[in-house]
Amino acid sequence: MGMPLELNTMIVTKGREKRVEENLFTLEKEGFRLYPIEIPIDVRKTIESDTNGTAMIKKVEWQKNSTTITYQLISLNSTN
Amino acid sequence: MGMPLELNTMIVTKGREKRVEENLFTLEKEGFRLYPIEIPIDVRKTIESDTNGTAMIKKVEWQKNSTTITYQLISLNSTN
Amino acid sequence: MGMPLELNTMIVTKGREKRVEENLFTLEKEGFRLYPIEIPIDVRKTIESDTNGTAMIKKVEWQKNSTTITYQLISLNSTN
Amino acid sequence: MGMPLELNTMIVTKGREKRVEENLFTLEKEGFRLYPIEIPIDVRKTIESDTNGTAMIKKVEWQKNSTTITYQLISLNSTN
Repeated sequence: MGMPLELNTMIVTKGREKRVEENLFTLEKEGFRLYPIEIPIDVRKTIESDTNGTAMIKKVEWQKNSTTITYQLISLNSTN
Repeated sequence: MGMPLELNTMIVTKGREKRVEENLFTLEKEGFRLYPIEIPIDVRKTIESDTNGTAMIKKVEWQKNSTTITYQLISLNSTN
Repeated sequence: MGMPLELNTMIVTKGREKRVEENLFTLEKEGFRLYPIEIPIDVRKTIESDTNGTAMIKKVEWQKNSTTITYQLISLNSTN
Repeated sequence: MGMPLELNTMIVTKGREKRVEENLFTLEKEGFRLYPIEIPIDVRKTIESDTNGTAMIKKVEWQKNSTTITYQLISLNSTN
């Protein structure tokens, strides 16, 4: 028993994020995941990729073995 | 820094729960609180009071330094 | 990635606890488990069994994908 | 009630780390803190300072309202 959780220290989008408005995105991930909220964290497309930018998570929802986060991009890595 | 969390092992309503439908309630609490989800836990009116019953939390939302849980009462302590 | 965790709300000994001194026990469990510390929680032999008693966890150690807790029994269910 | 926790996503030493052996250090922090274990995280002297390097936490101990971590430095930022 017990409740399985995954502690996450960055946002890995796998390109599945949805834009809500200008800098605000939602992302749904499988399972219950614990993310730091209101703290700057890295956003990456995959675990191995370089950082895309930095975000602040504004909202976390757990339901039906899935986690939905709403995050605000606060800076972008422009590398070109 | 870091994100303050409170690990909770029971639901303490202080009478502030709202009925959504028959056995389904929502409750908003201050701060970010970690509750076990989809696991039977005690429901009490105050920390010191006897158990009211047992519930399963179905949904947890964290936003703006507050936690909203949606829970289903699965058994009631009838003591009269 | 991320760190897998299990949120536990009771101590399930499976008879593997070791007595350190009078009311003080240690128990090693697989994986990283989050237990409430310094809060009264149920102690059971198996998940399905009745409560053996109530304990306070005094120490939690995480290392090499295992969790060791040190707990003090504060009350025993005597059912005979 | 509930157990106060702080979710930490980096190691902030404030110069209080103790060297155990070559690249292995221990650090004691006040309160119960949740750190990702066996995952590369930033090490800084203060929250505002630049990164000193990257570490892997090998052990976390919670006891008497304090958290002791043992971490291995896996890379150092040499900026001179």
